[in-house]
Amino acid sequence: MKVKVFVTPKETVLDPQGAAVREAMQHLGFAAARDVRIGRYLEIDLVDNGDVAAQEKKLRELCRDLLSNPVIEDYRLEMPNESK
Amino acid sequence: MKVKVFVTPKETVLDPQGAAVREAMQHLGFAAARDVRIGRYLEIDLVDNGDVAAQEKKLRELCRDLLSNPVIEDYRLEMPNESK
Repeated sequence: MKVKVFVTPKETVLDPQGAAVREAMQHLGFAAARDVRIGRYLEIDLVDNGDVAAQEKKLRELCRDLLSNPVIEDYRLEMPNESK
Repeated sequence: MKVKVFVTPKETVLDPQGAAVREAMQHLGFAAARDVRIGRYLEIDLVDNGDVAAQEKKLRELCRDLLSNPVIEDYRLEMPNESK
């Protein structure tokens, strides 16, 4: 079972890495890029133990405590049943 | 117009960051994580100039030359008309 996690900088937080990429794109002749935000993308392969709800609950805890910094980042968890 | 880019380590390439996160998850009591792969997720806000095909072509060049390292990474470009 593949779970996807997206960790993105909050809208209100400055994203210097994204700004640098936007600048680079413009220097490379692609002026259409108005804004670039860079986050992390995780694919987690889970052993299917039958209790998806409990796994999702634990994963949300891990997203908050381990995978993202809730002060400056948002996360989005995509369980396989949601994406289909 | 929002374009999404996913840059992920190739299947055959070792992902030490992902392995570290998998170990950490297991130490935190989540043994179900069999494999974790970590990549980058970019949201690019484009000025809509009417020629989406040309923009997509240029974006693919940028994905290859600027946003990913084709030796060890794959990229996936999601244009808004594809994701809807």
